Amino acid sequence: MLAKSRLKYIQSLAHKKFRETSHEYIIEGPKLLEEFLVNRPELINEIYALDTWVYGAKRLLSSVDPSKILIISDIELEKVSVLSTPNQVLALVKKFDTPDSPILKDQFTLVLDNIQDPGNLGTIIRTADWFGISQVVCSNESADVYNPKVVQSTMGSILRVQVFYLDIEKWIAAQKDIPVYCTALEGKNLFDMQPVKEGLMIIGNESKGVRPSIMKSATEKITIPRYGGAESLNAAVAAGIVLAQLCRK
Amino acid sequence: MLAKSRLKYIQSLAHKKFRETSHEYIIEGPKLLEEFLVNRPELINEIYALDTWVYGAKRLLSSVDPSKILIISDIELEKVSVLSTPNQVLALVKKFDTPDSPILKDQFTLVLDNIQDPGNLGTIIRTADWFGISQVVCSNESADVYNPKVVQSTMGSILRVQVFYLDIEKWIAAQKDIPVYCTALEGKNLFDMQPVKEGLMIIGNESKGVRPSIMKSATEKITIPRYGGAESLNAAVAAGIVLAQLCRK
Repeated sequence: MLAKSRLKYIQSLAHKKFRETSHEYIIEGPKLLEEFLVNRPELINEIYALDTWVYGAKRLLSSVDPSKILIISDIELEKVSVLSTPNQVLALVKKFDTPDSPILKDQFTLVLDNIQDPGNLGTIIRTADWFGISQVVCSNESADVYNPKVVQSTMGSILRVQVFYLDIEKWIAAQKDIPVYCTALEGKNLFDMQPVKEGLMIIGNESKGVRPSIMKSATEKITIPRYGGAESLNAAVAAGIVLAQLCRK
Repeated sequence: MLAKSRLKYIQSLAHKKFRETSHEYIIEGPKLLEEFLVNRPELINEIYALDTWVYGAKRLLSSVDPSKILIISDIELEKVSVLSTPNQVLALVKKFDTPDSPILKDQFTLVLDNIQDPGNLGTIIRTADWFGISQVVCSNESADVYNPKVVQSTMGSILRVQVFYLDIEKWIAAQKDIPVYCTALEGKNLFDMQPVKEGLMIIGNESKGVRPSIMKSATEKITIPRYGGAESLNAAVAAGIVLAQLCRK
């Protein structure tokens, strides 16, 4: 049985300001829970689950202190879940300890200028993970990586990709020794690019693209050629196409 | 002032069965309205808009019979809108007359096996449009292209891409003279593929991929190589990466 105060607390974690003071966030569903239980069980603070799930996940749960697991009803799960279709289990997990700034040497880093849609941000992190990128730098105005919709859209990649929030305008301008690639309307044809091993790749906001004040730090502007009528591409799709081309081996 | 019966009717169009009997669907927001007003004004049955929008769009609206335009209040718009943030204007538009089956000669056609998420379907149609693909064939079980979330995610590409619903298992098996490409776990490396001019490209369901009964009709299986830890890619991102590689010029 879920106490009313606990229910309210979990609901509050849908909001960034409460996640900031509590240093924890929500993950949901058997698949994401399994990823955390297998790879980072120490991050799990509390599990709220239907009894059927707990029964089926017995072996996975052996590494978790039983006092951290609370069995709740369908109706209670519906009240705390942020999913349109609640999926058996929800957990509160500790935020990651992320170093202050990324390590740029010998790796390719994705930079996001003000991605607003949580689904896009999560999908971009998932795509970066697929292509072996382990760092994503977001402008301070971007969607919050601990937003439940972002977390769910990463499909577990939040465990493998470090996400930084920085004043990227200043930070990019300060990078002197690495290539800075930037998606732009009139740049080099993406399909003429060779794979890259180091540097920053900047993807812009859903409707405004990359800010001019950031674009001016680019050492190479890149365009995804258009052969049809659409005015633009979805930001996550654009990121996927660019990463596929630049990270291919 | 919006009559209650009209309000209920518009709300009913969120459901496929009502769209099927009425042969019309909802589009929202100034940008999408403008695309329809400029390119296919004859498809517009009715416009429900805030007075500020109607005033600003005067020139665009000159081709529309004024009896088709109803000024409504913010509160009324909120009641009929399917957007989380209603955006000034909503219209009811006629469904397209689509031929029974696509023309396959001399063009590359995208085939979707049971894409369920409306946002994914809309984003895939938008991406197809970007790369100059004018036909998308969906399995009968896929999300409905006239679902308001699909329509909005196409960002206007619904005007340029013909979408067919077919029993794709039978239909693909009947295609004898064209290449059938299929995304698969163990196929040819996508980055070793040359651009193609003709054929079918099959993209699978979000969690299950392409059905084995369809996979067996493939003449070439294709894999997007993975260099990192993510278990899968978002379906729309995967479609974007594949189309970019195969449609490049």
